[in-house]
Amino acid sequence: MTTNEKALQMHEAWNGKLEIRSKAPVTSREDLAIAYTPGVAEPCKVIAKDPEAAYRYTIKANTIAVVSDGSAVLGLGNIGARAAMPVMEGKAVLFKEFGGVNAVPICLDTQDTEEIIRTVVNIAPAFGGINLEDISAPRCFEIEERLKELLDIPVFHDDQHGTAIVVLAGVINALKVTGKKKEECRVVVNGAGSAGIAIAKLLLTYGFTQITMCDRCGIIGKSTQGLNWMQQQMAEVTNLDDRQGNLADAMKGADIFVGVSAPGIVTKEMVASMNRDSILFAMANPVPEIMPDEARAAGARVVGTGRSDFPNQVNNVVAFPGIFKGALEGRAAQITEEMKLAAAAAIAGLVPKEELSEENIMPEAFDPRVADVVSRAVKDHIR
Amino acid sequence: MTTNEKALQMHEAWNGKLEIRSKAPVTSREDLAIAYTPGVAEPCKVIAKDPEAAYRYTIKANTIAVVSDGSAVLGLGNIGARAAMPVMEGKAVLFKEFGGVNAVPICLDTQDTEEIIRTVVNIAPAFGGINLEDISAPRCFEIEERLKELLDIPVFHDDQHGTAIVVLAGVINALKVTGKKKEECRVVVNGAGSAGIAIAKLLLTYGFTQITMCDRCGIIGKSTQGLNWMQQQMAEVTNLDDRQGNLADAMKGADIFVGVSAPGIVTKEMVASMNRDSILFAMANPVPEIMPDEARAAGARVVGTGRSDFPNQVNNVVAFPGIFKGALEGRAAQITEEMKLAAAAAIAGLVPKEELSEENIMPEAFDPRVADVVSRAVKDHIR
Repeated sequence: MTTNEKALQMHEAWNGKLEIRSKAPVTSREDLAIAYTPGVAEPCKVIAKDPEAAYRYTIKANTIAVVSDGSAVLGLGNIGARAAMPVMEGKAVLFKEFGGVNAVPICLDTQDTEEIIRTVVNIAPAFGGINLEDISAPRCFEIEERLKELLDIPVFHDDQHGTAIVVLAGVINALKVTGKKKEECRVVVNGAGSAGIAIAKLLLTYGFTQITMCDRCGIIGKSTQGLNWMQQQMAEVTNLDDRQGNLADAMKGADIFVGVSAPGIVTKEMVASMNRDSILFAMANPVPEIMPDEARAAGARVVGTGRSDFPNQVNNVVAFPGIFKGALEGRAAQITEEMKLAAAAAIAGLVPKEELSEENIMPEAFDPRVADVVSRAVKDHIR
Repeated sequence: MTTNEKALQMHEAWNGKLEIRSKAPVTSREDLAIAYTPGVAEPCKVIAKDPEAAYRYTIKANTIAVVSDGSAVLGLGNIGARAAMPVMEGKAVLFKEFGGVNAVPICLDTQDTEEIIRTVVNIAPAFGGINLEDISAPRCFEIEERLKELLDIPVFHDDQHGTAIVVLAGVINALKVTGKKKEECRVVVNGAGSAGIAIAKLLLTYGFTQITMCDRCGIIGKSTQGLNWMQQQMAEVTNLDDRQGNLADAMKGADIFVGVSAPGIVTKEMVASMNRDSILFAMANPVPEIMPDEARAAGARVVGTGRSDFPNQVNNVVAFPGIFKGALEGRAAQITEEMKLAAAAAIAGLVPKEELSEENIMPEAFDPRVADVVSRAVKDHIR
């Protein structure tokens, strides 16, 4: 049986990958009087006077919503709310199993920006955080920014920031392996959707200065036509020497390539045209922009992909469970840039110096230390 | 330690009465490939083609939302979304422990009818049903009616229908005990909020014809001023002999009194003025409209209350878990009047004829047969 066949069979057997469990027994009248009426009125009254007490008496303390409109699900595209559910349930499984965080999948029957914002604001009281997931660009940027302004709980679009954090972690270790310095590196980010833009932003925040973004039409610059508002913003802070041309032109002399784009679009010639000791993150799924062995043969020194069957897997699961675990435990109001940088450094730090190599820059997704280390880094940066 | 003190202490110890558990293991790369990427794409693709498959592959099959705006919580009134959470969590505990139904508390940061409707419609894809809870009248009527039109999953306002079903169950058995016939009974329903109106409606549907509704200003009739739209509708189908006056006037010669109103407002004199073998459901909480011993002393034959420390407890928990269990298992699109009548009859039927008495008309809340019997009754009436 193939993995896909087994996946379908198991999803039918699970009939939903999550269940709600009660922590409160209700096997007697006394139990009922404590967990429900009349006793339940007591915590209600305390919270009515002091809303912060919700974190003491309710699931808000350790429960987030995983919210999607089903508009950009995995590689499947705009498949809608119902069809997005298995992915959101899977995400909730990972939040619980890796970070101990309770996550409720909320799939929305609307793809209208204003409706999504209003709906999430309306359901927020029960939750300690909002993880946005698989919402297409550029709506995802506005939805996240507006929700961060409107809500007093952390809002985090994992496709953007989870990916960016894990890429930065890989980049940090790849710099150590190659001896390159961030101030001197030329970086190409291919793909100008939610992940590509968030990666470019976080690399800028980290201290890279020479970043060129490309999309399927080529290099993005101030004079490029047809950009959305977020891409226009990025054109102001990237490609500062105003290069023009296609991806091949962008990659000439580059030190780092980060692809969140399409299978097989990077050629050996492009890799060979890069600076020496080049670093490639080819994260198109399931088929990368270039296969690792080809990239290495063409001169790349460090190659990462999204796949678990090659070295250096770049997988969000090392980031998001720990991020929310830390944010909830520390009662953070927001996930800040400082927390993202700290999380990336913490993930990178999980690979001990003496074990770092071209083929070992990322911690294992199943390393049981990951979520704790990430959550501590996040908590240490709550202001 | 009092029950209230213990309740507060336990709520702090639980720190949320619910948790999300994963049914899917993720302890290896193979696990991850089946529960998450790439395998998870398979059920997504099937659901994208056939939305009904969501019931086969996702939690929609057995998960409902418990939705409140915190506007009419227990006897506490309008305490808001956050403070309503302990009650909604408690409700979710009961759904799971008594009916095996997964329930997610959703407390809304809005009390605007249109916003509530839109929000519930938007989050509906993940859920197999919507249990509305503690939403004040008359907004609750419009919210429920509109949601029933807009959604293809069952919508059920428990404060209305759960209460009405359980009262009808008690009435059915009280008729057996007293030998009264529904066609001949005069019924007084005191309280014209969500519960009182739903009780009056279901008693009409069951076949009672002479019902008088009262609120704190007295008997409700066609000429009563200041009624909301739903009370006006009720004035068309109740009080057909157009009585006027106060509660005492309404109760003269009545056979059945149902109170969902205020503590202690029924006097011994009022009970004494009722027809012989009178039946009283005095359900104000925690202090009933009249204490059972007083009512019995004044001539009442059967007395029920909302309390577990008196005989004949009228408790929604014998209804709502089984209602949704049956609706979900039978994939009902709505909870119909037929299902409500069948559920009431099933609950009444759980007290064997030979055990029926003035002091034993209701099954125990903890009777393990209840949810199954109710769910079967509901399933048998899905069209």
